[in-house]
Amino acid sequence: MLSFKIKAHDKKSRARTGILSMSHGKIETPAFIPCATQASLKGMTPDQAKECNTQMFMVNTYHCYLRPTADVIARAGGLHKFMNWDRPIMTDSGGFQAFSLNEPKLVKITSNGVEFRSHIDHSKHFFTPESSIAIQEKLGADIMFAFDECTKFDAPKEYILESLKRTHNWAERCKTAQTKKSKSSQALYGIVQGGQYKDLRKQSAEFLSTLNFPGHGIGSIFGEPKVASYEALKHSVEALPEKKPVHFLGIGAVDDIFAGVELGVDTFDCVLPTRLGRVGYIFSSQCKKETKWRYRVTNAKFKNDFSPLDKNCDCYVCTNFTKAYIHHLYKANELLFYTLASYHNLAFFNNLMKNIRDSIENDSFNKLKKKWLR
Amino acid sequence: MLSFKIKAHDKKSRARTGILSMSHGKIETPAFIPCATQASLKGMTPDQAKECNTQMFMVNTYHCYLRPTADVIARAGGLHKFMNWDRPIMTDSGGFQAFSLNEPKLVKITSNGVEFRSHIDHSKHFFTPESSIAIQEKLGADIMFAFDECTKFDAPKEYILESLKRTHNWAERCKTAQTKKSKSSQALYGIVQGGQYKDLRKQSAEFLSTLNFPGHGIGSIFGEPKVASYEALKHSVEALPEKKPVHFLGIGAVDDIFAGVELGVDTFDCVLPTRLGRVGYIFSSQCKKETKWRYRVTNAKFKNDFSPLDKNCDCYVCTNFTKAYIHHLYKANELLFYTLASYHNLAFFNNLMKNIRDSIENDSFNKLKKKWLR
Repeated sequence: MLSFKIKAHDKKSRARTGILSMSHGKIETPAFIPCATQASLKGMTPDQAKECNTQMFMVNTYHCYLRPTADVIARAGGLHKFMNWDRPIMTDSGGFQAFSLNEPKLVKITSNGVEFRSHIDHSKHFFTPESSIAIQEKLGADIMFAFDECTKFDAPKEYILESLKRTHNWAERCKTAQTKKSKSSQALYGIVQGGQYKDLRKQSAEFLSTLNFPGHGIGSIFGEPKVASYEALKHSVEALPEKKPVHFLGIGAVDDIFAGVELGVDTFDCVLPTRLGRVGYIFSSQCKKETKWRYRVTNAKFKNDFSPLDKNCDCYVCTNFTKAYIHHLYKANELLFYTLASYHNLAFFNNLMKNIRDSIENDSFNKLKKKWLR
Repeated sequence: MLSFKIKAHDKKSRARTGILSMSHGKIETPAFIPCATQASLKGMTPDQAKECNTQMFMVNTYHCYLRPTADVIARAGGLHKFMNWDRPIMTDSGGFQAFSLNEPKLVKITSNGVEFRSHIDHSKHFFTPESSIAIQEKLGADIMFAFDECTKFDAPKEYILESLKRTHNWAERCKTAQTKKSKSSQALYGIVQGGQYKDLRKQSAEFLSTLNFPGHGIGSIFGEPKVASYEALKHSVEALPEKKPVHFLGIGAVDDIFAGVELGVDTFDCVLPTRLGRVGYIFSSQCKKETKWRYRVTNAKFKNDFSPLDKNCDCYVCTNFTKAYIHHLYKANELLFYTLASYHNLAFFNNLMKNIRDSIENDSFNKLKKKWLR
């Protein structure tokens, strides 16, 4: 149950705007999708998330599987009811966390799946393509992702080749595993892998295209230099059917969003706004590329600064509180600090996406991109 | 700038309802006033506090004086602007924390004031009646409190007698210290002391009555057995002018609220809803006196309990989330836990006060009290 309508194309790039319709409603793309990792957006209520125009959440399957367990969430009636979020949700496959939250030596990959240890109690677990889909069906998100192996961006080509075979086989198994009932309300995305190798990215995208997924994720692109990442992304997206939605997994820095949109990405998920907010970083339209569009409100110079976090932002935080107050909340270890910093940062990304959508429709995407990336 | 209009009297006790009008608006009494200690209600935005019908905040002078300092708050335009709360605020004198947050041997009391150490950096500070008023004027709350010595409830009578002389002298000095400008927008309450001694409580209340404060606080009543506390409260309140509002400092347990209202108390401040919420205690109309009207949502039995925290509560939390979800948030160390637990607990106390006000006006206060205290 997913449909994607492209509204407008940028004339000079693959950037486009669209409407992605799912069981729990429509979202406007390109969209930023914050991570509500453990079925909770850190520091914010669902109402606050809506208030700052959040359209959709990413919830992590690995975390929910371990705690409170998929069964508890199923008994609650699924994630939407459990966490009181009636807008769309996507869940990842659980693979990425099984790899990234474990010591590499504790992760055992076989053709059947992945053995890993719980980060909570070190207990042993095993994910297979089939179990990942079964768990995600219990969670009940609008979009699920196929179980894949997340490889290091710069892993050797021989390894990526071997891994890609597994990931492609797992993609087929995930498709087969999805129940008829789930198909009526959940869309399953395939995930393009291939490390930094353009030919493998292309090969992966072409293979997945044959499986007729309703949409695709682009995985494991956290590489340096960024230009190599963008190349890998480009070769992934270009080999996918253009009319299907593309999700860029785990990506959300401002420059990466512009690069992704330009290359045809429709949705992005990332922990950046809330995670950086919690340690005192504030995103601001007044900051530049050199500081990654953020500053630390924890700096002593803000003790007496009674201006808003971002003078161009009209969010609840910026219209009601000052840097001095938020600086004080941080210094005083007040819980409200986490809420206000997270809220503004999320509003910043939601506003940025709105501006990007408008720019694509007004034929000024390139101008907007230059303004931000100069 | 304060006026108090008594609306209704209970026929069988000193309980009454009223409207307390201050610079930043009116509140209905009896009222519960949560503590926003460091100019922030822990875990909740001001909007959430309003949403659950919070009428007024208590902010602690000691904390704000140390951090961010009264000068920063004055430069922000006072507490209301600093913390974005346009409803009434009261500030205490700073005395209680100077005593209670220090090792007793580090607190030096002279006739001039109190020397204490900062709980933040151990630096040495000195509060006098005059400095307490000057700080509170910078903070700009609607109600300020006179600087007093907070004694142990069971301190020896000789000590209380000596202390009372100081507290009464300080009350006079506070009255003298208040500037004309402050008088136009801030009301200064005197504080009745006297430990557990009925005659000294009466003597203190009578002395303060001669100073013509617009309202009175009752201090240092955290004694056991409770019956002795209530006796001390009774002898304090009965000797005060009946038409003036009475505030019970630092009190907020359900039984203490009923006892206080019955004895003529109009307002209560307490950290209980937010402090207990943060460690997992949930107040509920379904709990009884034996468990202090609360239960621990952290208990494993709630993992699969999809009912609201309190089935009789219509707050945002109870209408949107389940025990199972809130239990999960606690176990998963999610920040949202603190918000939801604090929000519901504060709503519980605001609802309780509303029910108490209604019962006084419907001539059923005694019935309501019996229902809760049985």
